[in-house]
Amino acid sequence: MKISEVCRLCGVTVSAAKYYVREQLVHEGVRVGANQTSYDESHVRRLRLVRALIETGGLSIAAAKRVLSELDSSERSMYSVFQAAEHAIGVGGASVAQPGSEVARGRIAALVAEWGWAATLDNPGLDFAARALDGYTSIGFDAPHEYLAAYADAAATIARADLLALATREHPDLIAELMVVGTVLGDALLAGIRRLALQNEAAALFPPTETTQIRKERPE
Amino acid sequence: MKISEVCRLCGVTVSAAKYYVREQLVHEGVRVGANQTSYDESHVRRLRLVRALIETGGLSIAAAKRVLSELDSSERSMYSVFQAAEHAIGVGGASVAQPGSEVARGRIAALVAEWGWAATLDNPGLDFAARALDGYTSIGFDAPHEYLAAYADAAATIARADLLALATREHPDLIAELMVVGTVLGDALLAGIRRLALQNEAAALFPPTETTQIRKERPE
Repeated sequence: MKISEVCRLCGVTVSAAKYYVREQLVHEGVRVGANQTSYDESHVRRLRLVRALIETGGLSIAAAKRVLSELDSSERSMYSVFQAAEHAIGVGGASVAQPGSEVARGRIAALVAEWGWAATLDNPGLDFAARALDGYTSIGFDAPHEYLAAYADAAATIARADLLALATREHPDLIAELMVVGTVLGDALLAGIRRLALQNEAAALFPPTETTQIRKERPE
Repeated sequence: MKISEVCRLCGVTVSAAKYYVREQLVHEGVRVGANQTSYDESHVRRLRLVRALIETGGLSIAAAKRVLSELDSSERSMYSVFQAAEHAIGVGGASVAQPGSEVARGRIAALVAEWGWAATLDNPGLDFAARALDGYTSIGFDAPHEYLAAYADAAATIARADLLALATREHPDLIAELMVVGTVLGDALLAGIRRLALQNEAAALFPPTETTQIRKERPE
């Protein structure tokens, strides 16, 4: 197919696609005439992945190249691709997490240990969560253990769903694409659904007739 | 106490505090001399709440006033305060959610109905979640029902923890403060912890020896 067709299928402009080819993020097409180059499904898959890395994941060209070189390595393991992508994708729109306090980092690390998670301390989520805890501390809310436990349980539930979704895809490019998009959009999906759930809980905890005092127990 | 002491306790500058008093977000102190005004605990609580609304929640002065007038109303219900705050606080850093497609909005609304949540269609979470779904659709991932179900379960778990945390506070100003801060920081805490959980699930789904194909079942 022509590059314009590839671009239409991927939702990128022709100039962006040519730029990604020049930067070697996408492999070149096959020259089939003096003025014509032919592209196939493999270009569609790769261009979609590049778009996911750069537009959705917010990666620099250099960072995207590192993820793609993991993916194209003959020694590739999807875990190493996952690690390269996750390390490069910022959390909450921040490309580099500000470090949390030692106390907060320690509490999140203890949570990870208690839940038995195979997660490493260089995971950008650690500082991001720790900084949120620091914010709670600054308003005098010390986020008791059962509060963090609920968050850990919730995170485990959705992480399992996210990884099972990856298993529905066969081609490594498509798996990597959903990894990146799911990491970013999963946060947004959850933040949105959480708002709806919060409204429901607020309606239960603060019944409309309630005017002065918050009830300690929820009405059945 | 002096205004400088109030500001120290709240972590705001004196000029910001004076501005909030002038804008009637915080009540005036008691004049105790020609050049001296005295403030008390009630000013500390209110100034902290104003800081949470404006700095953490990202509300405009006008929106913060609306939330505070709900809070100060003689007819106040904490539910109406909650609604005013939640409506004003954007999701994911966006003050106004772009509308999702009708299909995606319909799927999120159906999820809310299935979970039996008392949530209304003007909840900003609806469009935010719907737009995330639209993003998934654009990469050919149609987010099957069990995927959305995991997200809804997770959201219910943390929303319950969030609202129970509010019940640990007695004063309406403090309850409202934690509502606002918890709505914003809860998303960040969850996004961070989710990253740690994702790494754990990836390690299980993509064992290090795996080089080519993603496994459909997880090793025990």
